[in-house]
Amino acid sequence: MRDLYHEELDAISDQLVEMTRLVSSAMSRAATALLDADLGLAEGVIAGDEDVNAIQHALEDSALQLLARQQPVATDLRTIVASLRMSADLERMGDLAVHVAKVTRRRYPASVVPPELRSTVLQMGHVAERIVAKAGSVIAGKDVEVALELAHDDDEMDKLHRELYRMILSKDWAHGVETAVDVSLCGRYYERYADHAVSVANRVVFLVTGAWAADQAEPVS
Amino acid sequence: MRDLYHEELDAISDQLVEMTRLVSSAMSRAATALLDADLGLAEGVIAGDEDVNAIQHALEDSALQLLARQQPVATDLRTIVASLRMSADLERMGDLAVHVAKVTRRRYPASVVPPELRSTVLQMGHVAERIVAKAGSVIAGKDVEVALELAHDDDEMDKLHRELYRMILSKDWAHGVETAVDVSLCGRYYERYADHAVSVANRVVFLVTGAWAADQAEPVS
Repeated sequence: MRDLYHEELDAISDQLVEMTRLVSSAMSRAATALLDADLGLAEGVIAGDEDVNAIQHALEDSALQLLARQQPVATDLRTIVASLRMSADLERMGDLAVHVAKVTRRRYPASVVPPELRSTVLQMGHVAERIVAKAGSVIAGKDVEVALELAHDDDEMDKLHRELYRMILSKDWAHGVETAVDVSLCGRYYERYADHAVSVANRVVFLVTGAWAADQAEPVS
Repeated sequence: MRDLYHEELDAISDQLVEMTRLVSSAMSRAATALLDADLGLAEGVIAGDEDVNAIQHALEDSALQLLARQQPVATDLRTIVASLRMSADLERMGDLAVHVAKVTRRRYPASVVPPELRSTVLQMGHVAERIVAKAGSVIAGKDVEVALELAHDDDEMDKLHRELYRMILSKDWAHGVETAVDVSLCGRYYERYADHAVSVANRVVFLVTGAWAADQAEPVS
């Protein structure tokens, strides 16, 4: 049987996994709401962010109590401190999903994404979902191999993001300034979301191996 | 004479003050470079971000060592954990100054900011400088009164940010899509920079009073 201390450490890890699940669902719904101009779905993402914030606060409380009561050293100490940083990344990912949902709500009933950009925006959403799903596996299973794939996925996100800008800034752009600004902001929200997910995975790699993942000097803060 | 332990705690606080000074200087120079299309100044901001990152790493190392060796509880523990979060906010503020500098560099020798937006962008830079200067005083002097002023300064930033959008989205906009997108992104960078500075100050308030500042349910993560 595991002792209470290690049960509490595991509980923190479970909270990170649960936060990952919630912000993954939030971005998935926000991305669909953006493409379908679905106000109800967008409102659900905005309202649901409270749950993410609540888990983060609970996690911070547990971490502080563990530090105070158990006075962990070495790996356990680094794990708890890294968990605090990861929870901040995940909380921010929830905020970014909310930002996407709020663009949808602000422009409703109009659609933010013009037809010729739908495919790129759809792909950005899919890459974001893939990245956060892998980050969840990395947290749950301490799987360093999966974490290393994330640099590649993140490159794909950056490529799609550049493609989006190219289309917005092309001479053929016929959708006006407001749509250009809104799509640019949403593109940035997706990219930042992916950056934070990669950062979460890299913190796990650092805990396991003592070195940052290749192609990543340090995590995004 | 203070003991080594409290000297180390003070050293962490000094590192936060030094980070605040560096990211304040970075945003001030980035804002000037943006308005003057000054490539040299922008390059300096981009290169200088290494120093901010180096202090953050040093601070994280010191904090982990303090936690492991001294096993602090109560206020000291909360102070160290809060310092880790504040250093992450400050490091991100340095990144946001770099983002502004990179927009300047990308558009050089063209100027990003059209004449009729100069006043608003200038004011946003000034408010950002005021907010970070106050955050620095709050860290250095644990001055809760100054922290409470920041909610007002942040409202001013939000108002300027909305004004910027109104001008970009007005029917009279004559500067094309690329400038609209670039100015929108810079506006967002200033606003996020201010949000992080307010978050840093609020963490100090929370340490001192045990409650978040008014009008602020929780800090930005």
